[in-house]
Amino acid sequence: MKDKLTIIKVGGKIVEEPGSLTSLLKDFAAIDGFKLLVHGGGRSATKIAAQLGIETQMIEGRRVTDKHMLEVVTMVYGGLVNKNIVANLQALGIDALGMTGADMNIIRSDRRPVKTVDYGYVGDVKEVNSQALATLIRAGVVPVIAPLTHDGNGSILNTNADTMAGETAKGLASLFDVQLIYCFEKAGVLRDENDDDSVINLVNRDIYAQLRNDGIVVGGMIPKLDNAFEAIDAGVSEVIITKASALNNLLSGTHIK
Amino acid sequence: MKDKLTIIKVGGKIVEEPGSLTSLLKDFAAIDGFKLLVHGGGRSATKIAAQLGIETQMIEGRRVTDKHMLEVVTMVYGGLVNKNIVANLQALGIDALGMTGADMNIIRSDRRPVKTVDYGYVGDVKEVNSQALATLIRAGVVPVIAPLTHDGNGSILNTNADTMAGETAKGLASLFDVQLIYCFEKAGVLRDENDDDSVINLVNRDIYAQLRNDGIVVGGMIPKLDNAFEAIDAGVSEVIITKASALNNLLSGTHIK
Repeated sequence: MKDKLTIIKVGGKIVEEPGSLTSLLKDFAAIDGFKLLVHGGGRSATKIAAQLGIETQMIEGRRVTDKHMLEVVTMVYGGLVNKNIVANLQALGIDALGMTGADMNIIRSDRRPVKTVDYGYVGDVKEVNSQALATLIRAGVVPVIAPLTHDGNGSILNTNADTMAGETAKGLASLFDVQLIYCFEKAGVLRDENDDDSVINLVNRDIYAQLRNDGIVVGGMIPKLDNAFEAIDAGVSEVIITKASALNNLLSGTHIK
Repeated sequence: MKDKLTIIKVGGKIVEEPGSLTSLLKDFAAIDGFKLLVHGGGRSATKIAAQLGIETQMIEGRRVTDKHMLEVVTMVYGGLVNKNIVANLQALGIDALGMTGADMNIIRSDRRPVKTVDYGYVGDVKEVNSQALATLIRAGVVPVIAPLTHDGNGSILNTNADTMAGETAKGLASLFDVQLIYCFEKAGVLRDENDDDSVINLVNRDIYAQLRNDGIVVGGMIPKLDNAFEAIDAGVSEVIITKASALNNLLSGTHIK
């Protein structure tokens, strides 16, 4: 039987506000067994970019990353946000190690090809070094991963944190019994998007087809659920979509199997 | 017989300019055996602080680090400078891992007590986690350490890179045959400070006493050499003071034994 590994992805909003960060890290520290955290940091990057006179341009929710913006995200994600999380986890007795994809070559990416849009220094995940991660995790280290990868030729690339969490989960699924938890702003997949009490607790492929058919799962939730099922297909045991504040009560979120 | 470990400290100027960084990293990559890099980044921190409207205040060569400056050095040292080095070393086939003292709790410090000056969030090294570092190094990982530590209570502390290199060398001296190399702007300890060809190749305690007596070693070189002899006393095999550009010809620098 494989050891359990919990992989949690939290967005920028949670980790950038001291109050919600403290409570998130306490809940994270309390999770039994092996674990790994992937974090965002977009709001801080936008704020610091603005202070440096660099304008943020988003296209379809993705940050256009020129050379200057790459410096900003490298600083903010890899330094400011990541090290703040690591220092706080260490204070909670968790042996955290902050990493980007470049560190120990854990996540390599290819620069996204220019089609209609040139996103600049943005990477699409190519390869996860599962063995290196597994060795760290089995030694009791808790990787804390910033949304940055590298191209193998010396450049850091800005990379979507959801994708990194998903690819990491898929890469580690052959070595661990992986539970992948996406912390969103909503409590899960909702039957009524304005009612956090209308969480749909279980979504399998049949239920998903029905929910799409009924117009309940629409818009931005579709790629999220598609990614979740892709992870399940790759051997991830379970994907959970929940609120960060519900990490200590996982039963409350949406479980995708 | 212990395995050899080369610990190199390079200042900000070298790692912040693309030309000198490229050549430094090539020389570093070419060093045989186990190795570890400690880097600075002060110039970039000062530049980015200024762009953010934060004034840099130095007292006796040390940066006064208030809350805002701590954010800047955390971003710049732990993110921008560190990840740029890591990505470039990976491109050279070196399995680099960027770290601060908080990561895997490798270097803990105490916030410097306020005497005549309040340096703010500045740490004095208290403990090096030699076992954690040795495990990584023996696994083929090359730690790349930014000049930041943590206090164990959730705060990152700005820490002198020379001291971190020295303390790391001392901490690892019982586990490895450690050679500690300080890359400075001058070619070593000079008989004539204006003549880079006047390097004194060997300095032991007797020669050091003589050089001080003769007024050849003065000013800022005294604490550097005192630190070097302290490292030797703690079991470090050799300390070398040289130019970064001379890393591929270590015989040219000053050897302290």
